[in-house]
Amino acid sequence: MFNEARKLINTNAHIYIERLAEAVAIRSVSTDLSCRDDCFAMADLLHRWIEELGGSSDKVLVGFQELDDGSRYDLPPVILAEFSAGKPRQKPTVLVYGHYDVQPAAEADGWSTDPFTLSEVDGKLYGRGSTDDKGPILAWLWAIEIHRELELELPVNVKFCLEGMEESNSECLDDLLERESKGGFLSNVDYVVITDNYWVTTDKPCLTYGLRGLATFHCEVKAGTQTLHSGVYGGCIAEPMTDVIQLLAAVSEYGHGDIGIENCGRKSATPITEAETELYKGITFDAEAFRHEAGDVPALLGENEKEVLMNRWRYPSLSIHGIEGGYSGEGFKTVIPGAATGKFSIRLVPGQDGKAVEESVKAVLEKRFAELKSANKMTVTSTSSKAWLADPRCPLYQSGAAALLKVYGVKPDLTREGGSIPVAGLLQEKLGVETMLLPLGQSDDGAHSENEKMSKRNYLQGVQVLFTFLGEIARAHE
Amino acid sequence: MFNEARKLINTNAHIYIERLAEAVAIRSVSTDLSCRDDCFAMADLLHRWIEELGGSSDKVLVGFQELDDGSRYDLPPVILAEFSAGKPRQKPTVLVYGHYDVQPAAEADGWSTDPFTLSEVDGKLYGRGSTDDKGPILAWLWAIEIHRELELELPVNVKFCLEGMEESNSECLDDLLERESKGGFLSNVDYVVITDNYWVTTDKPCLTYGLRGLATFHCEVKAGTQTLHSGVYGGCIAEPMTDVIQLLAAVSEYGHGDIGIENCGRKSATPITEAETELYKGITFDAEAFRHEAGDVPALLGENEKEVLMNRWRYPSLSIHGIEGGYSGEGFKTVIPGAATGKFSIRLVPGQDGKAVEESVKAVLEKRFAELKSANKMTVTSTSSKAWLADPRCPLYQSGAAALLKVYGVKPDLTREGGSIPVAGLLQEKLGVETMLLPLGQSDDGAHSENEKMSKRNYLQGVQVLFTFLGEIARAHE
Ligand SMILES: [Zn+2]
Ligand SMILES: [Zn+2]
Ligand SMILES: [Zn+2]
Ligand SMILES: [Zn+2]
Repeated sequence: MFNEARKLINTNAHIYIERLAEAVAIRSVSTDLSCRDDCFAMADLLHRWIEELGGSSDKVLVGFQELDDGSRYDLPPVILAEFSAGKPRQKPTVLVYGHYDVQPAAEADGWSTDPFTLSEVDGKLYGRGSTDDKGPILAWLWAIEIHRELELELPVNVKFCLEGMEESNSECLDDLLERESKGGFLSNVDYVVITDNYWVTTDKPCLTYGLRGLATFHCEVKAGTQTLHSGVYGGCIAEPMTDVIQLLAAVSEYGHGDIGIENCGRKSATPITEAETELYKGITFDAEAFRHEAGDVPALLGENEKEVLMNRWRYPSLSIHGIEGGYSGEGFKTVIPGAATGKFSIRLVPGQDGKAVEESVKAVLEKRFAELKSANKMTVTSTSSKAWLADPRCPLYQSGAAALLKVYGVKPDLTREGGSIPVAGLLQEKLGVETMLLPLGQSDDGAHSENEKMSKRNYLQGVQVLFTFLGEIARAHE
Repeated sequence: MFNEARKLINTNAHIYIERLAEAVAIRSVSTDLSCRDDCFAMADLLHRWIEELGGSSDKVLVGFQELDDGSRYDLPPVILAEFSAGKPRQKPTVLVYGHYDVQPAAEADGWSTDPFTLSEVDGKLYGRGSTDDKGPILAWLWAIEIHRELELELPVNVKFCLEGMEESNSECLDDLLERESKGGFLSNVDYVVITDNYWVTTDKPCLTYGLRGLATFHCEVKAGTQTLHSGVYGGCIAEPMTDVIQLLAAVSEYGHGDIGIENCGRKSATPITEAETELYKGITFDAEAFRHEAGDVPALLGENEKEVLMNRWRYPSLSIHGIEGGYSGEGFKTVIPGAATGKFSIRLVPGQDGKAVEESVKAVLEKRFAELKSANKMTVTSTSSKAWLADPRCPLYQSGAAALLKVYGVKPDLTREGGSIPVAGLLQEKLGVETMLLPLGQSDDGAHSENEKMSKRNYLQGVQVLFTFLGEIARAHE
C-alpha cells in the first residue's frame, strides 16, 4: 500500500496545505491571554477534524489561570482522542503527543510574510505553527485519513494527547497525565511518539532518543522600590545590580566548557560507554555549518564534530540569559535599579539530580552574597526538570527507522538534543513505556523565530512516514 | 522695589502659569526625531517672547544629525539673546544658561495627568519640562519683564544661552561656546548663572558650587550575529553574556563604598580640607528622608549625614546600569545573545583625571578578558567629563544668597551635587568666570520622571529671586 499512499498524498497535497493554512490562521498563542478564544477555536477545529475522520475526541478542561486582579481564564483544553484499529484490544496502542498552541508572532518582528497566513515560497510553507507543532499533528491526522481512503483498517490503535499550553510550560498537563495514566484514557498505551522536534540537519531524517533537562534560576537582589539616578544616589547605597553581577560571576566563574559548582559539572554526568560512542559514529553533522548557523561565532567548543555534539547533547552547560532591572536598551542611562534579577539556567544530563543541582547553585549564591556584606535582600527561586533518555535499540525506534528508510531512502541518524521537552520524560515516567521523538521538520525550520516554516516536502513525506510507521510498529509488536 | 515686584508677581501669576502651559504643550523632546519640529517651535516661542520684552535674540543653527540611512535632521537652534542694562558697557554682564528641550514622556509611563498639558493640583504644576527646564528659563524672562512693568532699567546686562539639545548630550554646544567665547557673543560675560538643578530638600533653598563628573563605559563582547537557544548551543560556544558578567564583576569587585581600580577610587580624590568640612556643618539634610525617597533602601552608606552627603557629592562611585543583549523582560527565556554590552559609569570628583580613569578601567577589562581566554571579541568605548567646583565665597554666590534670603527668609545652604551638568564646567572653563548653579525647583520635582512638577510657589518666588538677584549682583560688582 506504500505506493498507493504516495499517489494519494500527491493528489491530496493541496488539500493538506489548505487545511494547514486554516490551522495557521488561528492565533492560538497560549502566552497571550487576548488569544485565549483562538486557542479554544483551534481545539474545536481539531476536534471536528478528528470526529470527521471517525475518531472519538474529548476536549478536557484542565483548569484556569487567575490573574492578580482576580480575573480568571480557562486553560485551553487537552484533546484526548482515539482511533481504533480493526480489532481493538488485540492490537497495540500508540499514543501521539503534540500541541496546537503556538509562540507569539508579529510581522514587526521581522517576518517576511504575515505569520498567520500560510505562504508558500520556493517549496516552503511559512507561518507561525507550520512546523511547531500544527504541521506535524495535522500530518498524523492525514496519515489516518489515508487508511480510510484506501479502505484499510488501522494496524494499531492510535490515541492522541494534543495540548494547548505547551508554549506556556504545559500548565496542568502533569495532573491530567497522572489522572489518566492510572486506569484512565492513557492506561493501556504501549508506545509513545512525540512529533515536536527537528532534524539535526536540513536533509537527513533522524530519531531522537535523548534530551537534556533544565534547571532554571531567578536570583533577585532588592534594595528599594524605585529606580534611582546614579548622580543622586551613586555612592550612597549598596546597588542591587552590583550584587547581582557578583553573584552571576560566582556561578559562572569556571568559564567556558564546564561548570565549577558541585553536582553541576561534567563530573556529575553519566560516564560515556562504548555503546554510546558507537552511536555518534555515523551521524551526519557539519560543525562548520553549525558554526555558521550560530551567527558565525568565532569558534565552537569541542575539538571535533563528535565533541561538539557531545557538548550539545550529553554534557551540562550553564547559560546566563540576562538581567531584569536596570537599563537594557540602546544608548546609556545612568540609572540604579531598585532591584535586579539575574536569570540563568543549567542544562541537565543523565546522571544529574535536579534537586541537588538547585541546592548546590543556591549554596554558591548564598556564600557569595554573604561575602558581599550587602544590606540588600537576595531571593533565589529555581525549577528543574530532568534529562530524558530512551533505548534507541528497542522495537519502537526500529519501526521509526524502517519507516524513514522507506520514505527517504536513508537510515536515520539516532540523535539526542540539547534542549528540553519535559513531556517526553513525563510520559515515559507516567506510562512506563518506551517513548520516541519522531521529528518531521528540518533544522532550519525556525520554530519560535520569525519566518517559521515547514518545507512542503517534509509535510507531505511526513504524512507518508507516519502512515508507514503505523504498519511497521504493528508488525514489530507481533 | 522688592514689594512692588511681589505685588506684580501675584497679579501676574495666572499669566505666568498660562505661558508655562503654552511652553509645556510643545513637545520639544530632543531625543525623539519625530519631535524635531516641536523643538524648533519651542525656540520660536522663546525668540518671540524675548523680542516682545525688548531683548534681541538670535536663533543660531549649530549643525545637523545624520542617520545611518543618510537622512539629516537640523539640530534645534541655540538661542543667544541679550537684554541691555541702562548704560551698557559700564554694567556687568550675567550670562544665563538654560535649555528648552525636555525628556520624553508618555501617559503610559505612569503619569497621573497628560504630561504635555500643564495641570495644577494642590499648588503643584505638573507637566514635562515644568521644572526641567522650561519653568526656570521662563522665570528669568518674567524677572526681566517686571523691570519693564515697573519702569526700571535693568541693573546688569543679561545674556541668555538657551539650548535645545541638553537632554541629548548638548550636541555641538561645545563648538558654539568655543566660537562665541573668543571675541563673540560670550566674550564680555562677567558671571554665569545656570538654573537647571534642584534644592537638596523640599523646603530649603540652596546654591550649588560643585558637581561630580562622569566617565561612561560600554563594554561589548560579541560572538556572532544571532540570538541562540541554549538548548541547541549551550555548551558549544563561549557565551558573550558570561564574558560580560565576568568583566563587570572585575570592575566592581571591590564592593560597596569604594572603587578598587587605580586612579578611580577615593584615594584619587582631592583630600578634604577644614574649610570644606566647615561647609557641611549647617546643611539641612535628613538622611532618613533621603533613604525613604530612595525607595526605602535598607541602609545608606555613611555613618552620619555628613558622610552620606560626602559620598554623594565629593567621592567617586561606580554604578552598573544594565546589560544590553539577552532577555531582560519578566519571566524566563533560554536565550544566548550573540552579543552583550555591559554599561557602567563612574562619577568623577575633583582630583580625578577623566582620561586616566578611562585608561585604568580599560586596563582592568583587558586583563580580565585575557584571563577568560574567550574566542569572542571585546570592544570598550568610553567618555568622560570632569567634575566642576566653584568658590562659594565669591561675590556671585553672595549675591545669590542675599536674594534667596530676602525672598525665602533663610540663608541658603551651599551644596554640591552628585550628578553631572557638563555645561557648568564647560562655561567656567571657556569663559574663565565664576559660575553658579541657582536652582529654583525642589528635591521632589521629579525631573526625568513621570509626574514631573514645579511647585507654583517655587515658580512665582523664583521670578522674585531672579529679579532680586539682578539687583544684588549689580551692587556686589560695584
Ligand atoms: Zn513545540
Ligand atoms: Zn515550541
Ligand atoms: Zn535640565
Ligand atoms: Zn534634564
